Amino acid sequence: MAKELKELTPRSKDFSQWYLDLVIKADLAENSAVRGCMVIKPYGYAIWEKMQRQLDDMFKETGHVNAYFPLFIPKSYLSREADHVEGFAKECAVVTHYRLKNDPNGNGVIVDPEAKLEEELVVRPTSETIIWSTYKNWIQSYRDLPLLINQWANVVRWEMRTRLFLRTAEFLWQEGHTAHATREEAVEETERMINVYSEFAEKYMAMPVIKGFKSESERFAGALDTYTIEALMQDGKALQSGTSHFLGQNFAKAFDVQFADQTGKLEYVWATSWGVSTRLIGALIMSHSDDNGLVLPPKLAPYQVVIVPIYRNAEQLQQVNEKVAGIVQRLKALGISVKYDNADNKKPGWKFSEYELKGVPVRLAIGARDLENNTIEVARRDTLTKETLSCDGIENYIKELLEEIQENIYKKALDFRISQTREVDSYDEFKIEIEKGGFLLCHWDGTPETEELIKNETKATIRCIPLEGDKTPGKCMVTGKPSKQRVIFARSY
Amino acid sequence: MAKELKELTPRSKDFSQWYLDLVIKADLAENSAVRGCMVIKPYGYAIWEKMQRQLDDMFKETGHVNAYFPLFIPKSYLSREADHVEGFAKECAVVTHYRLKNDPNGNGVIVDPEAKLEEELVVRPTSETIIWSTYKNWIQSYRDLPLLINQWANVVRWEMRTRLFLRTAEFLWQEGHTAHATREEAVEETERMINVYSEFAEKYMAMPVIKGFKSESERFAGALDTYTIEALMQDGKALQSGTSHFLGQNFAKAFDVQFADQTGKLEYVWATSWGVSTRLIGALIMSHSDDNGLVLPPKLAPYQVVIVPIYRNAEQLQQVNEKVAGIVQRLKALGISVKYDNADNKKPGWKFSEYELKGVPVRLAIGARDLENNTIEVARRDTLTKETLSCDGIENYIKELLEEIQENIYKKALDFRISQTREVDSYDEFKIEIEKGGFLLCHWDGTPETEELIKNETKATIRCIPLEGDKTPGKCMVTGKPSKQRVIFARSY
Ligand SMILES: [Zn+2]
Ligand SMILES: [Zn+2]
Repeated sequence: MAKELKELTPRSKDFSQWYLDLVIKADLAENSAVRGCMVIKPYGYAIWEKMQRQLDDMFKETGHVNAYFPLFIPKSYLSREADHVEGFAKECAVVTHYRLKNDPNGNGVIVDPEAKLEEELVVRPTSETIIWSTYKNWIQSYRDLPLLINQWANVVRWEMRTRLFLRTAEFLWQEGHTAHATREEAVEETERMINVYSEFAEKYMAMPVIKGFKSESERFAGALDTYTIEALMQDGKALQSGTSHFLGQNFAKAFDVQFADQTGKLEYVWATSWGVSTRLIGALIMSHSDDNGLVLPPKLAPYQVVIVPIYRNAEQLQQVNEKVAGIVQRLKALGISVKYDNADNKKPGWKFSEYELKGVPVRLAIGARDLENNTIEVARRDTLTKETLSCDGIENYIKELLEEIQENIYKKALDFRISQTREVDSYDEFKIEIEKGGFLLCHWDGTPETEELIKNETKATIRCIPLEGDKTPGKCMVTGKPSKQRVIFARSY
Repeated sequence: MAKELKELTPRSKDFSQWYLDLVIKADLAENSAVRGCMVIKPYGYAIWEKMQRQLDDMFKETGHVNAYFPLFIPKSYLSREADHVEGFAKECAVVTHYRLKNDPNGNGVIVDPEAKLEEELVVRPTSETIIWSTYKNWIQSYRDLPLLINQWANVVRWEMRTRLFLRTAEFLWQEGHTAHATREEAVEETERMINVYSEFAEKYMAMPVIKGFKSESERFAGALDTYTIEALMQDGKALQSGTSHFLGQNFAKAFDVQFADQTGKLEYVWATSWGVSTRLIGALIMSHSDDNGLVLPPKLAPYQVVIVPIYRNAEQLQQVNEKVAGIVQRLKALGISVKYDNADNKKPGWKFSEYELKGVPVRLAIGARDLENNTIEVARRDTLTKETLSCDGIENYIKELLEEIQENIYKKALDFRISQTREVDSYDEFKIEIEKGGFLLCHWDGTPETEELIKNETKATIRCIPLEGDKTPGKCMVTGKPSKQRVIFARSY
């Protein structure tokens, strides 16, 4: 994977190109030969694995178990829930045949017309329908509830315009699908999981988010309520980072899933679903990274520390190797992941650029003079500052430094969001402010008509109706009609 | 998931039905509404997660990293490698369209004929072609090699006759795809990975396996050599449990992947691929389980210990709960996974049967008399024996017991395989012996013709040409021609 370390396009010049440059040059992902489908490269996938491991632990701590449901969904299932089919049928990969055969003209293989499926299969865009058709057989009595199941899977939505991680035809995600005896319990679950996502975003991704409800027109197709976490990217655009849906009894009715309650009475089951995807990697990049490359929070970095030796000859390298072996051991004993790069075919300067580009939180460098002085150079990726410290107890220093970097990255992103969040009270002002980016807190009359007018005129959408914060009523900035509370408008990914 | 605990069909009566009963009743998997696709239920998936975690660790310890490649493969890619297309094109799910639309007649949704793909996409049956088309861009120089990449993914092969875990249209697996500068290095990698699989099968699954080469006609489509591990199931049939392929330069030539060596000369890259799948769960079941249900090796059991309280009233339960809390804590401190089932809506007898069915290695039971005596009942799933022991130091006893169970299960399976493995020297004898099942060690002249004759007449195939053991030459049992060593024949899954 040899690659020249060229300059990234600066964010100020072209944010979109900066993002693409960075994804490619940091070896995170690339477009594949299949339109809209990405290849997630090892370094990008290592970040996803860190995310998966942490989320999976959090799901299990909240009582969930994993399972796996089929990739394919019979076409007719999609039609069972009226809103759902409207939302998902339009952009599906459709399997129509189950065999290829040799081209009689000798040109490779062709679809065998005799192997046509009786009913076409859709590659899952989301799994509510196949899962609720299965739950029908699993749920008879209140004793079978709740069902708290998660699936890690690939899904396909045939997007016309794609962007690596942010919008791809195929992506990886997890989807939770739970079944409950009561409305209250399902609502509680919906809220529990948006809180899990919010905690994950803030504590692990170091990315501040605002929790809220989606407006009716932005809801998941088939949901009664969609909770979302919304983050602000460095270019002032919002990114929806996770959603949790209260599905009411829609899917239970669509697939006839009833249970006998304690009195023996049959009731429809209450449902939730919730998911986050590889899109989070895009959110992570656009939250923290800079014109020098990735900035990764220590809790999700594939390795937290890299050590680069500086030497003139084999003898010096040998001495550095010995010194570093002890440091590596002490770092690992504290649970810190570390890479020692003593590859001989790259210069230290090249390595410094490479690990800066890849966002390794802490870089250590050690040379002949350091050996004499028992010192080591410590460089932080987030602030790009360096200091030379004694090797004694360096492992404890690094451990604390990693925590500090995690907090600093979060604080920087939070300060940025606060600076970019403002109340706007007139629609004229709104039209000016929305051009500057950021979150605009505005009163809205609660109607889809006003929302659509704003969207058409300004490309801004309601990101969410915040759960927390100021709930003072007011008047809609467009129509002057009553508004229950300010909602967040922004342009978005 | 209420479910009557009915008897399983005994193995001696109908092994195949026993297997199916067990998979369903132990809540491992079930057939879905989509023909040939299974639903892996939470208990079955938990076993897969244990397998994944361990294998993933072993892959990383041997220098591999994970990545993710597209689900879809352009149809023309399959044709690039001549043997490969013969092996895989025949049973593919083919995506021909990318959109559904409302049926103008009002009957749900139909495929939109205007959304036809220019080139059809095949749902990956295995990923050599898409991966090598990607490697072409990643490999220019010897410095880019080796590439040691693994992928965890779903794949689809449109099988006509399916059986849960053993043969399904969609299954989960991992596929390693490595690229090397020399033949020797690629062969070493192929061998390294069959050794990883063998170690995993024996140490974790407690399943003895025989390592060997596949004969030419049983090789992977596109491979120069296929290494396999073969296990013997309790019904005397063989199960191929993992394969590692030396692909030579076939895929590099098909996708024109060349690298500049240290002298600047262009050479084709050498390749390997290797995989194991959810089929291993079927192998695990058929290796160890009995007429009472699953028998799981402690290292892969979703929980290793279950504790069942025995009580007459709430006060007694309260006392047992307190006692058990301490035991659970001490077990967990030793890294033992434990479930305390004090659910009030099931009787102890029901729970005993349930956990026996589910193969939990150790069951503890504790009642009022035990509280008085500071004792606990310890039951082993593998031997179905029980003993009453003091609670003092019970955690250390259990830890050793789990190791003993792991070893005992392995030994039992190994003894069985040894008892079912025999040398056969005449084809007449072979025809009698093959009906009894087991591994038959026979001389074979090395030709596909003789192999096919034997297969057609007896349904037995060459499972492998063993790497280890007796290498004495002899004469083919069918043709009398020279044979280099005995090979293993068996009927198989
Ligand atoms: Zn609806
Ligand atoms: Zn070939």
